Amino acid sequence: MTSESAFKSLTQSMREVYTLAEVCSILHWDQETMMPKNGVMTRAAQLSELVGVLHEKRTNPKLKEWLSHLDDTTLSVAEKAMVREIQRDVDKAHKVPGTLLQEIAKEASLGHQVWSQARKEKDFALFAPALERMVNLKKEYAKCLGFKESPYEVLLDDFEPGSSLADVSAMLEGLRAPLIELLGKIKGKELRMASLVGEYPEEEQLALAKNVSTQLGYDFSSGRLDLAVHPFTSGGTPGDIRITTRVNPKDFQDCLYSTIHEVGHALYEQGIDKGLTFTPLGHAVSLGVHESQSRLWENQVSRGPFFSQWIYQQCKDFFGLGDMGYDGFYRAINEVGGSVIRTESDEVTYNLHVLLRFELEKALFEERLALQDVEEAWNSKTKELLGFVPPSVDMGVLQDVHWSGGHFGYFPTYTLGNIYSAELFAAADEQIDDLSGKLSRGEGGELLAWLRENVHQHGRIYTAPELMTRVCGHQPTSEPLVRYLQAKFSAIYGLESA
Amino acid sequence: MTSESAFKSLTQSMREVYTLAEVCSILHWDQETMMPKNGVMTRAAQLSELVGVLHEKRTNPKLKEWLSHLDDTTLSVAEKAMVREIQRDVDKAHKVPGTLLQEIAKEASLGHQVWSQARKEKDFALFAPALERMVNLKKEYAKCLGFKESPYEVLLDDFEPGSSLADVSAMLEGLRAPLIELLGKIKGKELRMASLVGEYPEEEQLALAKNVSTQLGYDFSSGRLDLAVHPFTSGGTPGDIRITTRVNPKDFQDCLYSTIHEVGHALYEQGIDKGLTFTPLGHAVSLGVHESQSRLWENQVSRGPFFSQWIYQQCKDFFGLGDMGYDGFYRAINEVGGSVIRTESDEVTYNLHVLLRFELEKALFEERLALQDVEEAWNSKTKELLGFVPPSVDMGVLQDVHWSGGHFGYFPTYTLGNIYSAELFAAADEQIDDLSGKLSRGEGGELLAWLRENVHQHGRIYTAPELMTRVCGHQPTSEPLVRYLQAKFSAIYGLESA
Repeated sequence: MTSESAFKSLTQSMREVYTLAEVCSILHWDQETMMPKNGVMTRAAQLSELVGVLHEKRTNPKLKEWLSHLDDTTLSVAEKAMVREIQRDVDKAHKVPGTLLQEIAKEASLGHQVWSQARKEKDFALFAPALERMVNLKKEYAKCLGFKESPYEVLLDDFEPGSSLADVSAMLEGLRAPLIELLGKIKGKELRMASLVGEYPEEEQLALAKNVSTQLGYDFSSGRLDLAVHPFTSGGTPGDIRITTRVNPKDFQDCLYSTIHEVGHALYEQGIDKGLTFTPLGHAVSLGVHESQSRLWENQVSRGPFFSQWIYQQCKDFFGLGDMGYDGFYRAINEVGGSVIRTESDEVTYNLHVLLRFELEKALFEERLALQDVEEAWNSKTKELLGFVPPSVDMGVLQDVHWSGGHFGYFPTYTLGNIYSAELFAAADEQIDDLSGKLSRGEGGELLAWLRENVHQHGRIYTAPELMTRVCGHQPTSEPLVRYLQAKFSAIYGLESA
Repeated sequence: MTSESAFKSLTQSMREVYTLAEVCSILHWDQETMMPKNGVMTRAAQLSELVGVLHEKRTNPKLKEWLSHLDDTTLSVAEKAMVREIQRDVDKAHKVPGTLLQEIAKEASLGHQVWSQARKEKDFALFAPALERMVNLKKEYAKCLGFKESPYEVLLDDFEPGSSLADVSAMLEGLRAPLIELLGKIKGKELRMASLVGEYPEEEQLALAKNVSTQLGYDFSSGRLDLAVHPFTSGGTPGDIRITTRVNPKDFQDCLYSTIHEVGHALYEQGIDKGLTFTPLGHAVSLGVHESQSRLWENQVSRGPFFSQWIYQQCKDFFGLGDMGYDGFYRAINEVGGSVIRTESDEVTYNLHVLLRFELEKALFEERLALQDVEEAWNSKTKELLGFVPPSVDMGVLQDVHWSGGHFGYFPTYTLGNIYSAELFAAADEQIDDLSGKLSRGEGGELLAWLRENVHQHGRIYTAPELMTRVCGHQPTSEPLVRYLQAKFSAIYGLESA
């Protein structure tokens, strides 16, 4: 068998895998947006059947055989990247026994129920045994795949492939001191913000969301906007990437900024080179880079001092906004410190929330923290990082769904997204002529073209660190994010410049 | 291997097949209702991949082995029926080469384009070569599966399993003389009907459609109503059966009666015993019986003289209806002879339209009709059955999509549906106390319960003729339909009773 024919067989086989994986995405989207409530039992059976077919295809012994016939020296950059991704897929499928994956899936489903109940009853002890079982299962999972120093390396790699735990730790920990200091200064100022609370009809909020999505370049002939309890962007192919949002009738910010966040994700997916569809490269490179796109459009652009002028005008047209001038609006959408919940927190505290979870779950897996001490550790670390103790456990250690599903290693990708978005925005700002002026006039087209050229189109050809280094000219660090947050919030809160 | 363990393995394997087949249904529904237009290319790839997986599972050699280990004498009625259906599936999958199925699929896709173009240009000669290729492919298909006298037996069996061509022919041909006679008499009367043409806002039409669906017993927590160009009911499982409709802003009848038709289909699917889900028995028994449910609710119930009183009141509440009284409304919704198109035709001419196609396609496959004579045969038979010559070929031989897709044998199931609906309604009317009075008050619940009990719940446990004979106490014939049409339209048109 020649290397060429082995490569062809490999990619054809993986094409089947990726085609069926997209079917799972559509079924998930349907479940969250369209499916009638009594469809839930049979939908679970459909998804589980598809997962079975996918596992069978991924463990097809021929894949290993074909991989062994490849001659690396004859492959192009893109072909090498494909092989890297296939090897990764095949390795994971072979090294982790199907029975362990089933156990994890079962525990996740059970754990979700237990967590909901524990949160409702505000009792961490109810959830602790399920959490312990899940941590043990994921330790076993990490063992199957192998690691150098910490089992957490493996967990992180599921969401942020190609990045080392050391580099990610350095980036995240680089935020610790400067953000605690910045938050302290902000708290020293008791600034009164204008309130955006009011009555905003659903149809108007959705019409605004559609306007803004179109303005940002989201292509509705390759997507659609629907309602969902927890907004998300469907996976899919560039021709079919769907976004969802939610509506709070008292505050239009929720719908507006959730939509922009999802538009950021969708612009990335819609921009991946269509030639890569149904190949291992036709996907976002990592959750961190994915999140960088949603956060860049949500924060740097739409909560920034330029594009928010266009947004303000739109909101004024739709909702009036009373006698709140643009300055009041800008400050209101950037208020710091209103929430004890990660998902509702501002740009400054958000990353401290993530740091808290990252440090705790890393310690858990490195056996520097015992299960019975988690609640206490959560509370004291919240005090240390954010300056308060959670008012109750449902707003503390039980606030997030991730651990119940075994998604350890997911949290750091949120902050990586913020770090990357600051890096990318700084690079774009340098390379695009008068970006601020363009954004002030509501023109995001050149920025989108820049991201398409530098990030979106490549899919998974480069790993996340390779991609970021190519675009920014240096290995990414937390410094641009720190500088960005210091400058922005010093201006808003009238702090002495850092 | 014991019979018991062979049966268990068989049903487990088929469970996978039926689970994935339902995924195809959801993808089709999504494509017709929700999918953005640029999703079309990748959707085709997804469906084709799933069809490949299904074919692989259906041709798994172990199925035959397990079938050979079964001991018929130990199986229950339901188990025997399962084996019958599995045997049928496995036979079809083995006897027809995959390459032939692919050729048919390819020709269907090409044929659809050619047909659209030919219809647009009103030129049958453009379509004839594609039609010939498809007829030849389907002859080969029939040969693979084997038949006694006519290849058309095989084609019919794809849509109406368990019914013999001789019985179906007898039922359909039994309508010929009486309906031609009835139509002649109706044409003799030149009755002027009130017109329902007006301006009807889409939201109001959809609100009415939802009201009527709920009133008929459609369960929105196991389904939903959306718009589609050609209304259909999604396949699925009883917990998730979705209906679609369309809106003509000038005439509310289209939306109203399309919805009721689809509700009829959906009530059937929602009523199949949930214990049969994902088994070979968890489906409608045949297209004819399926259509009997849609036609019964659409015609016998909702265009009948009782339930239409409730509908009239609803329409009056929504649309006013001017000074048209109930009698005018009832006659308007039952006007005969307005259209040269099958899909828009009334209860009397509809079956003659079907008879035309049935006789032509049977003759084609029995080589009593040559391809070059089809257009001419269509026109002369239209004259013979319906009393007119099609004004142009797009309203004649090119009006239906079915032949371009190779769906020969499908048409007769439309009229079988009408025949069965008349049988079923007559039986229900005998067994339910004061059915007319209940329907006049808008109460369809007892009729639905009767259909659930006698038809819906059974899925495929009985074949269509077995089921009909069980319910009606005799082998079904066309007589109840003839009597029903004669009585109804004699009353409306003031004919001497037949």
